Amino acid sequence: MYEVLNTINAPEDVKKLTNEQLETLAVDVREALFNRLTKIGGHFGSNFGMVETEIAMHYVFNSPEDKFVYDVSHQAYTHKMLTGRKAGYIDDAHFSEDSGYTNPEESEHDFFNIGHTSTSISLVTGLARARDMKGGKENIVAIIGDGSLSGGMAFEGLDVAGSEINSNLIIVLNDNEQSISENHGGVYENLAELRRTNGQAENNIFKAFGLDYIYEENANDIQAMIQVFEKVKDVDHPIVVHIHTQKGKGYKLAEENREAWHWAVPFNRETGVPTISFGEDYTSITGEYLLKKANADKDVLLITPAMPTSFALPRAERDALGNQYIDVGIAEEQAVAMAAGAAKRGAKPVVLTNMTFLQRVYDQISHDVCINNLPVTFVINYTNFDGLTDVSHLGIFGISIFSHIPNLLVLAPTCREEYLAMLEQSIDQKDRPVLILIPGGAVIENQTFAELGDVTKYQCAVKGSEVAVLALGDFYAKGEALAEGLKKELGHDITLINPRNASELDGETLKGLEADHKLVVTLEDGIVDGGFGQRIASFYGASDMKVLNYGLKKNFYDRYNPDALLEELGMTVAHMVASVKNILK
Amino acid sequence: MYEVLNTINAPEDVKKLTNEQLETLAVDVREALFNRLTKIGGHFGSNFGMVETEIAMHYVFNSPEDKFVYDVSHQAYTHKMLTGRKAGYIDDAHFSEDSGYTNPEESEHDFFNIGHTSTSISLVTGLARARDMKGGKENIVAIIGDGSLSGGMAFEGLDVAGSEINSNLIIVLNDNEQSISENHGGVYENLAELRRTNGQAENNIFKAFGLDYIYEENANDIQAMIQVFEKVKDVDHPIVVHIHTQKGKGYKLAEENREAWHWAVPFNRETGVPTISFGEDYTSITGEYLLKKANADKDVLLITPAMPTSFALPRAERDALGNQYIDVGIAEEQAVAMAAGAAKRGAKPVVLTNMTFLQRVYDQISHDVCINNLPVTFVINYTNFDGLTDVSHLGIFGISIFSHIPNLLVLAPTCREEYLAMLEQSIDQKDRPVLILIPGGAVIENQTFAELGDVTKYQCAVKGSEVAVLALGDFYAKGEALAEGLKKELGHDITLINPRNASELDGETLKGLEADHKLVVTLEDGIVDGGFGQRIASFYGASDMKVLNYGLKKNFYDRYNPDALLEELGMTVAHMVASVKNILK
Repeated sequence: MYEVLNTINAPEDVKKLTNEQLETLAVDVREALFNRLTKIGGHFGSNFGMVETEIAMHYVFNSPEDKFVYDVSHQAYTHKMLTGRKAGYIDDAHFSEDSGYTNPEESEHDFFNIGHTSTSISLVTGLARARDMKGGKENIVAIIGDGSLSGGMAFEGLDVAGSEINSNLIIVLNDNEQSISENHGGVYENLAELRRTNGQAENNIFKAFGLDYIYEENANDIQAMIQVFEKVKDVDHPIVVHIHTQKGKGYKLAEENREAWHWAVPFNRETGVPTISFGEDYTSITGEYLLKKANADKDVLLITPAMPTSFALPRAERDALGNQYIDVGIAEEQAVAMAAGAAKRGAKPVVLTNMTFLQRVYDQISHDVCINNLPVTFVINYTNFDGLTDVSHLGIFGISIFSHIPNLLVLAPTCREEYLAMLEQSIDQKDRPVLILIPGGAVIENQTFAELGDVTKYQCAVKGSEVAVLALGDFYAKGEALAEGLKKELGHDITLINPRNASELDGETLKGLEADHKLVVTLEDGIVDGGFGQRIASFYGASDMKVLNYGLKKNFYDRYNPDALLEELGMTVAHMVASVKNILK
Repeated sequence: MYEVLNTINAPEDVKKLTNEQLETLAVDVREALFNRLTKIGGHFGSNFGMVETEIAMHYVFNSPEDKFVYDVSHQAYTHKMLTGRKAGYIDDAHFSEDSGYTNPEESEHDFFNIGHTSTSISLVTGLARARDMKGGKENIVAIIGDGSLSGGMAFEGLDVAGSEINSNLIIVLNDNEQSISENHGGVYENLAELRRTNGQAENNIFKAFGLDYIYEENANDIQAMIQVFEKVKDVDHPIVVHIHTQKGKGYKLAEENREAWHWAVPFNRETGVPTISFGEDYTSITGEYLLKKANADKDVLLITPAMPTSFALPRAERDALGNQYIDVGIAEEQAVAMAAGAAKRGAKPVVLTNMTFLQRVYDQISHDVCINNLPVTFVINYTNFDGLTDVSHLGIFGISIFSHIPNLLVLAPTCREEYLAMLEQSIDQKDRPVLILIPGGAVIENQTFAELGDVTKYQCAVKGSEVAVLALGDFYAKGEALAEGLKKELGHDITLINPRNASELDGETLKGLEADHKLVVTLEDGIVDGGFGQRIASFYGASDMKVLNYGLKKNFYDRYNPDALLEELGMTVAHMVASVKNILK
């Protein structure tokens, strides 16, 4: 097992291998991928597809002097194994040492923490320009998938590479005919034409951007790829190397169902069946609701930038929606402005993506949607601190980014019933744009909040005195626990409020608390800086009311244990009760 | 004067005109443009270039049933005159009624408030999809300039239009061979090839996106354009109409110097000389410093997304910088990620743009730059509330958007000396990314703040008691005035602090104030929501210190009088002194 891979501690070891050993290395790498992915999951399809290409890259180029920048960097597992990090794949005890993305803290062969799409070409234009300023001579290589090509930033990069860089720059376009889900965009017909013509089609998007271009059909063949890279190594101008790989190569189930195997949870290698099971969660509730709603109301238009899988929208069901569903590819800006246009023409657009990607469209939300006060509903997943914990996919900044935008109502439901009511109310109203933070964690049932009324008003669940707890969204449960803890300690009821939204101050409720409360405690699932609680602190700033804000610190947390983090932040009930008592003294 | 224009009150009046009258209308429209622009300034070149095309559009199509969406919408002046708003051009008393952009509050012929580039194609895909859902039949038309084509969002729009819209959609590409400054990007060579071949070149970027395409060379000819639009009217699929116009058409000076005449301040029509004059301001200080710095330090790389004119960087000087200057076109995402790449490879990148455009790159600043903690310096203009007052160009959200991003130091200089020292320190350090808010208003000289030291620490200018005023950035002068006013009223010195940065709390200084102060007053040039002051309020929330936050409300202000706005917000010295006294009671 791992006969050849065991001998690889750095790229120079790859260069010493015979052709036969290189083939064995590819087998070993796939075995190592299976070892990690069956046990802890990860990005599957692109990594299985890129094994041969990444081996050839390290055979031909001299990393880290020559620099590789992987787009999204979810497909860099082979690169990681060949650059001193194989333990994270073949030795279960070391899995946690490797992130799922490139990471300069791990290795000098990685240059950036990356996790969002379409950035690699822009990044390498910067590396190349600085290299030229400093008289460097190394190769600069971007590796970008066809799915990432739908992002406008990739085109900005191609455009600048095609005109402003007059020196070495190699853009490897890994075409596996698939984004996360199926590709969407006119450019994919051009890629198909280029594949059909072995790169000879007269119309060529890359040449239209002023770039040199070559095509290689057999990108799952190490020797073919070595030849390609030897040809372009030390090229004196930017060139696109369009290669055709098989997504999921080497695992039949993944080759046949590329969407399902873009990302894998731990699974049984023989059957492909996940070894962990999922019950109902807020994602499945969302998908179920949206399909039902869209089928019942022909004005509903679901728009997603390549994220149907984050919303439990299976291929057959979304196809059946016809004109009422559009996946724009990984193109968040397009998704949001298209929603603005659709709302203007009387549709009920619903934009579906994850919070980490929504931060790519502050401007479009502010300008195209909110200045024009158009009734677009944003339904956003993974807004919770214990959802995606990779530094490149955090959702903890969302409240701070979006809740200061005028006209935008940011809703934070606390439970299933309230969430479904908010979806329905938001999609059906015509007054303003609404952003709904899908709660994280286990589904909570609570009929108390099923009736919404005016969601810009806070809802008081328990009327007590001395201390009021304002617990936003999926931190409401923590607020309940805190109120209980304080009640035990202080011997009387504590006021417990569900603010329901993060963007509008309910001045009347807040003023009302001044009569018989000394302290307001806020809790929110996000960073405190620029968030909900600080608005409350500012509101009471000139009064006698004291305010204590709980939430996360502004920090790029990475692969943390959520419970340990709360402990560290003093957010256990015991800690918070002690802090409150200290303030009340 | 205005013989034909006077008869036009709505588009139907244009349709009644003879060919000869249409020609006279074009003359009248240019006279009206001169009338407004010589007196109050505005976007010049694109409007003079588009007179004939916009007349032809209203002659052929039926606005507002047929829908025109102008990219940026700075070139829609002719459209405005033909849709009931000519008074804003021919009658000086009515200038203020018309904004410089499309505006649905002005007219049913406008569909969106717009001011940022590259959004129009995405917007029309939304209008088109909703039209199709609702069974509408109207034409949907986007009008986008070649300069806007460098923005990735435009490519996202083309990509989706080319594959997902199977019905009427017309994209008019107004090619005047110029962005704000010269064009940058490989795509412009393809446009040139298409112009040279009268649209027949085999390589065609639009066809590569799957779009139908026609070319018209004579777009300053009304009859030619009428023929073109009659041909594409009611087309049953998306089509790009590539037209060639003369930017600044009809004014020799503007035709010859397209950069200078992209935007005009009030000017003398005979000579072209501005009738208002500018002395030294923070913009000219910035340009002078940056040129000197780049010439002295060969590691400095100035990167701008088409904004050299906002930084007083003349063509000859920037060309002379060679590799050390790059204009990436209107492509903010590219600019920021390229800066990240350049910093990684050891250059000292400086990104130059206006705050209203920087909000397009929250994600790139957070991810590409800040997660990787790369020493990129962002030097940002028009961050002040009294700079650009169009709703589409406000800089007042900047502190709230950016100051919660981990690793990013947001500096707010108060005067010339401090600003120059911050530029120097930021560009030369290697510790972290820095965003500098260029002050607004008249240049203030103040040696007090020339020595920086550690800019994460607040600087105390006056040590007083009872009240401390923390006045950020270019609102420092207002803080000085408030401290003076309070001193008179209270009979003792008031503490006056220059916080210098908006992103890092100086806990030691803040703690120190608790001994002999009852109230902290914050002032900042931006909205209070999510801003600097709310962090201070949160810091003191559980203490006895009271906090009063001054700044703007979260609101999409539009073309306001800055002084009147401050008055309305209770931010005159008299008002603020009264509020403070009331709290101290």
